[in-house]
Amino acid sequence: MSNLTHVDASGSANMVDVNSKAETVRVATAEAFIYMSQATIDEVLAHQNKKGDVLTTAKIAGIMAAKKCSDLIPLCHPLMLSQVDVDIEVQAEQLRLRVTSLCKLSGKTGVEMEALTAVSVAALTLFDMCKASDPNMRIEGMRVLSKSGGKTGDWQHPNT
Amino acid sequence: MSNLTHVDASGSANMVDVNSKAETVRVATAEAFIYMSQATIDEVLAHQNKKGDVLTTAKIAGIMAAKKCSDLIPLCHPLMLSQVDVDIEVQAEQLRLRVTSLCKLSGKTGVEMEALTAVSVAALTLFDMCKASDPNMRIEGMRVLSKSGGKTGDWQHPNT
Amino acid sequence: MSNLTHVDASGSANMVDVNSKAETVRVATAEAFIYMSQATIDEVLAHQNKKGDVLTTAKIAGIMAAKKCSDLIPLCHPLMLSQVDVDIEVQAEQLRLRVTSLCKLSGKTGVEMEALTAVSVAALTLFDMCKASDPNMRIEGMRVLSKSGGKTGDWQHPNT
Amino acid sequence: MSNLTHVDASGSANMVDVNSKAETVRVATAEAFIYMSQATIDEVLAHQNKKGDVLTTAKIAGIMAAKKCSDLIPLCHPLMLSQVDVDIEVQAEQLRLRVTSLCKLSGKTGVEMEALTAVSVAALTLFDMCKASDPNMRIEGMRVLSKSGGKTGDWQHPNT
Amino acid sequence: MSNLTHVDASGSANMVDVNSKAETVRVATAEAFIYMSQATIDEVLAHQNKKGDVLTTAKIAGIMAAKKCSDLIPLCHPLMLSQVDVDIEVQAEQLRLRVTSLCKLSGKTGVEMEALTAVSVAALTLFDMCKASDPNMRIEGMRVLSKSGGKTGDWQHPNT
Amino acid sequence: MSNLTHVDASGSANMVDVNSKAETVRVATAEAFIYMSQATIDEVLAHQNKKGDVLTTAKIAGIMAAKKCSDLIPLCHPLMLSQVDVDIEVQAEQLRLRVTSLCKLSGKTGVEMEALTAVSVAALTLFDMCKASDPNMRIEGMRVLSKSGGKTGDWQHPNT
Repeated sequence: MSNLTHVDASGSANMVDVNSKAETVRVATAEAFIYMSQATIDEVLAHQNKKGDVLTTAKIAGIMAAKKCSDLIPLCHPLMLSQVDVDIEVQAEQLRLRVTSLCKLSGKTGVEMEALTAVSVAALTLFDMCKASDPNMRIEGMRVLSKSGGKTGDWQHPNT
Repeated sequence: MSNLTHVDASGSANMVDVNSKAETVRVATAEAFIYMSQATIDEVLAHQNKKGDVLTTAKIAGIMAAKKCSDLIPLCHPLMLSQVDVDIEVQAEQLRLRVTSLCKLSGKTGVEMEALTAVSVAALTLFDMCKASDPNMRIEGMRVLSKSGGKTGDWQHPNT
Repeated sequence: MSNLTHVDASGSANMVDVNSKAETVRVATAEAFIYMSQATIDEVLAHQNKKGDVLTTAKIAGIMAAKKCSDLIPLCHPLMLSQVDVDIEVQAEQLRLRVTSLCKLSGKTGVEMEALTAVSVAALTLFDMCKASDPNMRIEGMRVLSKSGGKTGDWQHPNT
Repeated sequence: MSNLTHVDASGSANMVDVNSKAETVRVATAEAFIYMSQATIDEVLAHQNKKGDVLTTAKIAGIMAAKKCSDLIPLCHPLMLSQVDVDIEVQAEQLRLRVTSLCKLSGKTGVEMEALTAVSVAALTLFDMCKASDPNMRIEGMRVLSKSGGKTGDWQHPNT
Repeated sequence: MSNLTHVDASGSANMVDVNSKAETVRVATAEAFIYMSQATIDEVLAHQNKKGDVLTTAKIAGIMAAKKCSDLIPLCHPLMLSQVDVDIEVQAEQLRLRVTSLCKLSGKTGVEMEALTAVSVAALTLFDMCKASDPNMRIEGMRVLSKSGGKTGDWQHPNT
Repeated sequence: MSNLTHVDASGSANMVDVNSKAETVRVATAEAFIYMSQATIDEVLAHQNKKGDVLTTAKIAGIMAAKKCSDLIPLCHPLMLSQVDVDIEVQAEQLRLRVTSLCKLSGKTGVEMEALTAVSVAALTLFDMCKASDPNMRIEGMRVLSKSGGKTGDWQHPNT
């Protein structure tokens, strides 16, 4: 059975020591989807054509959130991200928006939580900006897509 | 077609004026699920029986995140939440944990984004604490369950 | 000579008591300018026509900063802003962008520092996004344009 | 025409990859001025002689703000500043205070935004502490004075 | 036995509902002491006489920390403090500095945690600024001195 | 007499340059005690036996606070902690809880302020969760226990 490194001998959570880990270039990508009604997708598309503000606002929110990851997740280490990308694709036929992120740094611990935090807050921002139009929206399929660097090396989610 | 109140005349995002809205008691509830492998569920269950740390850590993270909502979501108003509850239920047969939240305040704007932020960060914290065991986890079904108070009054998600 | 209310009897700074002040609707507006080269203005204009990202990013940064004002300015009271607007106008002939803001709340203390913080951080964000093109930029003319509400009532900067 | 590295191929803002940049010692200095009435300058001078609180409070606010730069400016990288100095000089004859800052680190990206954030928030704090005396104050001439380190090497603002 | 309101029926921590509490003016005061060597006290006194920077820096840090209380203490409600005072007295004969604070607001919950956070961070700042001179310092006697307002009315620590 | 490195030539506080310091592994430990009534100790013990929530909540708060140290203490450098441990021991016979912390990183400056911030906020959280039961509690004996790494090498508080 795998070994949960965040739990100390007495069973209490701690921010584990990563000092002895190797400093390598680490990249992680993540994704999430937000499902909305046809009318709301249409509104987003119309705004995107005109100004793109809904998408840009969500994108900026996602980038800023990646930098706050260790403030939000109790046992995440503070990190100096060297890159954060967030992209949002309107997949109108599936009645959804796809949010993806990429985080990168040269460091001693992985950045998948930063990548997940970015897609999470970008999706919540889309929710906030569209909720007057469709309060029934759902955020689905939030997961890590891939990781590279560190001890485990390249990893990809089996369903990609 | 519904009216997106976050977009001004020139199409740019702003934090809209809620000053003239009525101050009423407002409550919102939200939920999210995190799916994991049998082995990882077993580990969480074992810890829950012994110490409950994974669940308590995620719960605390969710509560603290609700208070940061307006820091994370660009157009959310700063609010003085009078109550935040986060609960996590292990639904072992479905191979998932269910995170629910309730936010409440007496104010001029709703608290559904706070409730969503709480379940989102609680779920991300569960992800962080279990990812050494199962990196393939997915967060699904994040949505608002119900709202009360304000102009719209009582609202419930149609699929509940 | 006017009375600096932020300094206590022994000369040390404190966050003064505003509890006995009347709760009224308070609005403040502020402005700032950023001067840049013709080539950099042209780039902003070209992006604005295509995507508007530089301007939207700066606008979002300004709105979010208004909400952080009491975190940044030591003696500012925490406030629950009911509205924040930030606008950016390209004044190409004067080789500058004009950033304006409006903050509003119903409360016991004014919001001019929030309005100034919004234009300040929006202007810094414009600087950040354009500095690769023109490192010589200058931010000028940052000031409060008007205030209303509170004991002093309506006030307008004499040079407007 | 110069190349704006913060804008990706599709025109949307991202926090660009600095991982391949060289790690060198980087220093940046910045300045800003706040203009005020003779009576307000006199008050600051009197307090400075007695306690120095207005100036010390603004100085501390500027130092703390430099550390928050990547929280405020959406596309700034998180950095580990090794030094932040903020100084404030009363230039009574010009009816102004001059705020200067110096930021330093050994890293992969420059620190001019940190230096600008420091002078900006120090100047806003001076504004906050003096606004009861003179609400007409203006913040002017905020700019980067010099940079060293990195690919571009030593740079100085042409008007110094 | 008293009733711990922060623990829900299932024993898990939550941010309890204060919405039905009466909104009254609430004040709390707190204190803490930091003990240091004679040489370090002498240095503080000398600086105090000349500039007062150590004391002013600690005071500003304490005021700013009071505003961050609900960010730091998981189950504290966000509050809009109407007043924060922090004072530091050099008690040279006892080889200590006494830090006191007063927090005030009109609200539904008490402000003793804000008052304690203020003295705690002010004392830590004194520690930081004096630790090069005396690393053996101790912070002692941190407690709430008095509270007023709310259901319990006026309360004073029995040993005052 | 020792040399306070945080004070510049003109007597004003600055965040001093640590860039030329050696990067070594640095560890610091700290402790604090919170004294409470027998009835309150009994309640904590009972909760600890059943759920451990009071202790886990305080522990999480302490870990998260260590990461915020440079946000709270004006002249502390931002650091990338590689490890944070917080432990709480119920010392029922002495009517107190003992909070200890360990912070570690590979860097250019020590981590004793981070260790102190961790025990401070953990103790404040214990206070918050127990204050309904005993408002007379006191936090005592907060100090650095040991440091290693850096120019001074291994150091231990003389009274340990």
